[in-house]
Amino acid sequence: MKPMEIEKRSFEIIAEELGERKIDPEYDLLVRRVIHTTADFDYYDNLCFSEHAAKVAMEALRAGCPVVTDTTMAMAGINKRALARFGGETHCFIGDADVAEEAKARGVTRSLVSMEKAARTLGPAIFAIGNAPTALYSICDLVRAGKLQPKMVIGVPVGFVNVVEAKEVIMELGVPYIVARGRKGGSNVAAAIVNSLLYQMIQREE
Amino acid sequence: MKPMEIEKRSFEIIAEELGERKIDPEYDLLVRRVIHTTADFDYYDNLCFSEHAAKVAMEALRAGCPVVTDTTMAMAGINKRALARFGGETHCFIGDADVAEEAKARGVTRSLVSMEKAARTLGPAIFAIGNAPTALYSICDLVRAGKLQPKMVIGVPVGFVNVVEAKEVIMELGVPYIVARGRKGGSNVAAAIVNSLLYQMIQREE
Repeated sequence: MKPMEIEKRSFEIIAEELGERKIDPEYDLLVRRVIHTTADFDYYDNLCFSEHAAKVAMEALRAGCPVVTDTTMAMAGINKRALARFGGETHCFIGDADVAEEAKARGVTRSLVSMEKAARTLGPAIFAIGNAPTALYSICDLVRAGKLQPKMVIGVPVGFVNVVEAKEVIMELGVPYIVARGRKGGSNVAAAIVNSLLYQMIQREE
Repeated sequence: MKPMEIEKRSFEIIAEELGERKIDPEYDLLVRRVIHTTADFDYYDNLCFSEHAAKVAMEALRAGCPVVTDTTMAMAGINKRALARFGGETHCFIGDADVAEEAKARGVTRSLVSMEKAARTLGPAIFAIGNAPTALYSICDLVRAGKLQPKMVIGVPVGFVNVVEAKEVIMELGVPYIVARGRKGGSNVAAAIVNSLLYQMIQREE
């Protein structure tokens, strides 16, 4: 089987196993792609969306909005060719020397400082956060301080400490969001969500 | 909380929730790190190991064995600084122009050809496969043809088609393996397994 056939068959199996469980058509392909990426049907239940989140995110991507990630892994997982088709680029500042220095000096995480750098240098962007709850808290602080208006926060860090709470805070912030409620998520999930939006945009064009 | 404190507390929570469920001490930290990476306790049940797999993998890493991945995402997730401490490097050939050309000409996947290139150019290596079952089948073919003797196959692709079967084939091949039986896995899981081995090696040195 060719890769495209395998993907098609995978989505059919997911549909079969979802059975009677229905998904809002706006988020249908997105939820299925996350399940495809993780083989974990929990994402049927835990993915939460602000009003018309998929539409809002696609409008931003279509306008060439940059995508900021908290890890190089999430950045590696995003389909850069698909993103570039609409003029967008990925950015991840976690490995930057100035970020590391500042984090050390202030006694905070590099994730936190990397979000501040993104807000300062890029302006409005889509934030795809798959790892660090401190990145989500940093976004909250920046928004509350009037220093950032994210086009979309994809809040899907994974973990056992501060993760559940950070996601709830994002959903109360008044910004557009796509969040995996609870402990689950990951860099792979963050990338899958961005890719799903891009693939749907390309499919509609073709 | 500092990142190291968060990690420590996370591992305590995982231990609490595992409760009476015991893990072979050789694999204890590895299994916990995969659960830490995914927030998914299914990995307690699905991770399978050939005889002394952790010991075998650590010996290879200590000798500076290269680590080959099937995706740039798995490569991005591996702690390169920790690996370099023992002389090792990561390699991923999936994006190489010659791999793409050959895959197209032969009508096979780039994953398959990238494994052949790894076998040809690197020789014995640790293979960390988190995405493509065709990479696992390629490794099987190479081993059976006498063209490859992997030091370790970390076989944790995720998915719904050919994935379950490919993992079973790897476990019957007679090579050292760490496999997540069933559908689950991912590039993040592949990277977490490599990192767990490296962190244990470093901890023992310190």
